[in-house]
Amino acid sequence: MIDNPYYRHEFHGDYELISIGRLELEEGGVIPDCQLAVATFGTLNAEKDNAILVTTWYSGTHQIFRDVYIGPERALNPEKYFIVVVNQIGNGLSTSPHNASGANVSIAMSKFPHVRIGDDVVAQERLLREHFGIEQLELVVGGSMGAQQTYEWMVRYPARLKRAAPIAGTAQNTPHDFLYTKALVEAITSDPGFNGGEYSSNADVVDGLKRHAGIWAVMGFSTEFWKQEVWQALGFDTKEAFMEGFLEPYFTAMDPNDLLCMAWKWQHGDVTRHTGGDLAAALGRNTAVTRVMPINEDMFFPVRDCEAEQKLTPRSELRVIDDVLGHLALFGVAPTYIGQVDKYLNELLADS
Amino acid sequence: MIDNPYYRHEFHGDYELISIGRLELEEGGVIPDCQLAVATFGTLNAEKDNAILVTTWYSGTHQIFRDVYIGPERALNPEKYFIVVVNQIGNGLSTSPHNASGANVSIAMSKFPHVRIGDDVVAQERLLREHFGIEQLELVVGGSMGAQQTYEWMVRYPARLKRAAPIAGTAQNTPHDFLYTKALVEAITSDPGFNGGEYSSNADVVDGLKRHAGIWAVMGFSTEFWKQEVWQALGFDTKEAFMEGFLEPYFTAMDPNDLLCMAWKWQHGDVTRHTGGDLAAALGRNTAVTRVMPINEDMFFPVRDCEAEQKLTPRSELRVIDDVLGHLALFGVAPTYIGQVDKYLNELLADS
Repeated sequence: MIDNPYYRHEFHGDYELISIGRLELEEGGVIPDCQLAVATFGTLNAEKDNAILVTTWYSGTHQIFRDVYIGPERALNPEKYFIVVVNQIGNGLSTSPHNASGANVSIAMSKFPHVRIGDDVVAQERLLREHFGIEQLELVVGGSMGAQQTYEWMVRYPARLKRAAPIAGTAQNTPHDFLYTKALVEAITSDPGFNGGEYSSNADVVDGLKRHAGIWAVMGFSTEFWKQEVWQALGFDTKEAFMEGFLEPYFTAMDPNDLLCMAWKWQHGDVTRHTGGDLAAALGRNTAVTRVMPINEDMFFPVRDCEAEQKLTPRSELRVIDDVLGHLALFGVAPTYIGQVDKYLNELLADS
Repeated sequence: MIDNPYYRHEFHGDYELISIGRLELEEGGVIPDCQLAVATFGTLNAEKDNAILVTTWYSGTHQIFRDVYIGPERALNPEKYFIVVVNQIGNGLSTSPHNASGANVSIAMSKFPHVRIGDDVVAQERLLREHFGIEQLELVVGGSMGAQQTYEWMVRYPARLKRAAPIAGTAQNTPHDFLYTKALVEAITSDPGFNGGEYSSNADVVDGLKRHAGIWAVMGFSTEFWKQEVWQALGFDTKEAFMEGFLEPYFTAMDPNDLLCMAWKWQHGDVTRHTGGDLAAALGRNTAVTRVMPINEDMFFPVRDCEAEQKLTPRSELRVIDDVLGHLALFGVAPTYIGQVDKYLNELLADS
C-alpha cells in the first residue's frame, strides 16, 4: 500500500467507502473485500425510483461530476434525483492496486488482478441493491470508460434501467483505441522506475507518467484545441506551460498501477462477451430510452464509431456534442459544454 | 559511425552520393562535407527545363518513389521528365548522424547538429544548380516532410519552380504535430539503451523504436484503417501480426539518431521564418501553379490545416486524396491511391 496524497479526502472531498464483500472477477481473479468509493447527491425517495447512477472514466473520480455535472440548475439535479456516483474499481478511491491492504493485501500493487467493465457493473448493481435498496434506475450516465459501463448496464441488466446516456465512449472497444491505450500503458511500464509495478512511490515513475501525459496531449485534445490555443482560456501563456502546469501534474499525481488497471479494463471493454461476439445482438437487448452522445472533435471515440453502435441500439437517438477540446471536453472546461449535456439529458429525462 | 544494413545499397538500390561541400546550418551548426543521396530517373534535356524535384518524408528514402510514384505510366514519367529524388539530410542515406565519418566525424551520432527544412532546400538548390546545372524546376513534389520542403521551395525560391505539389503536409508545423513528434522522440530517447545517442547499434534501442512504432500505429493510420482491418490486404491475419510483421520491423531497422534528426526538423518546419512569423506573407510569395493535396483520413495533417494554408497560397487549388489508410496512405498500399496522385499531378503538369 502506498499513501498517495492525491487520493485523500482532503483532495477529493466527501465520499463513503462501502464494502460489497468478496468480488469474483470475470478473468478469474478475486477482490477479497471490494470497497467502492461512493458519493451521493440528493435524497432517495420512498419509492426508491428516483435514482441515477453515474459511472467514472479513466483517471476520473466522482469529483468532476460533483463540480461540473451535478447541481440544482443541472439535468443531474439533486433536488429531484438521488444521484449515486460510483468510482470505478482501480481508480484509486475504490479498491485499487495502490490502496490494497488489510483483507486485500494479497492483491496489492503488481499482484492486482485484471478487472473488466462487467466486474464494475456487477459491483455497482450489488451496491445499489444491497446497500441502497435500489432495483430500478431512472438513468445510467457516464463518459468514456463511464460510457463503457453504461453500455454494459444496457446489455447486462436491460430491465433495471429506464434511460441511458453513454457519452464519448463505445460498447465495444475499437482496435484503434486498443492501440492508443497500449501506447499509454507502454509509456508507464517502460520507465525503469516502474520496476514491474513494485515502485515505492508514484514519483519513481514520474518520467513514464509524463510521457503518458504527452500521449494524452496528442489524442485527448483535438488538433484545433492546440491550433486555436484554447489552453489560453485556462490561464496559460504557452502550450508548454499548459503541459507543465495542467496535464503533467494531473497525471503524475496518480498511481501508475491504478492507471494500468483502468487501461487494461478500457482496452478490453466489449459487450459482445454476452452474445458470442455479436454486437447487434448485444445492443439489441437494450430497452432503455437512450441518447448516444459522442463529441464531434473526439480523436479516439470518433462520432462515426459511436453512431455505428447507436444505429444498432433500440430506442436510441444520436446527439453530437460540439466541443473543440475533443475527448477531454468531458472535463467541462468550455462554457458551452455542460449546457449541451444538460439539454440532451433533460430531453432524455423527459422522455420515456 | 554505425554500419546499419538497412541503409546499404543492397536494400535501397542504386543511388549516387553527391557532395555539395560544406553546409552552414540555420541553427548555427555546420556539416563539413554534406553528401546528398540522389536517385535520378529519366534524362535531363538540353534546355535543362524538364526537371522535377522529389523530396522525402520522415523515415522515407527515394526507394518508395522509385517503387510507387515514378514510372512511364505515372505522372512522374521518366520518359518525359528528369526526376531527381533527393534524400533529406539525416535520413540515413544522405549525411546523417549514424553515417557521419571522415570529414564529418566531428558531428557523428549525438554530436549531429540541428538541421532545418531550409537547410535541406538550400542543399537541394545547390545540388541542382552546381551538379546538374538546373536552375528551373518543372515541379517540386513531396509528401509529409517532403511537403514541408516543397513549401520551403515555394517561399524561399519562388522564381525557381513552375509548379508545386505539397502532399499531406504543411508549410508551418502545427502545435499538435509538434506534440505528436515529441511523443515519438520521447519513445526513443527514454530507452536506457539510447544512452544519450551513443549506442553501439540500433538494436540497443529496439524497445524504444518499438514504442515509436506503436505511436505511429495510433496516428499514422486512421481509426477506420484499424476498424476495417485494412491490414488484411497486406497479408496479415491479426493487427498484432501486422505490427510485428510490418510496422515494428519497418522502424526498428532504422537508426535512432537519424530518426531524431528528422523529427527535430519536422517539429520546427516553418516558412514564416522568412517573413517574421507572417504566414500569409510567406505563402503569398508563391508563384508556382500549385496543388495542395491532403489525405482525407490523415490524423495529424488534417485537411482543414492544409486547406487553411492553401487558401493563403496564390495560384493554388485543393485536391483531397481519399484513402482510409490515413497519413501512411503515402506508402501507396491502397490500389486507388496512386491513381488519385497521378490524376492531380497530371492535371497540374498540364497547367501553367
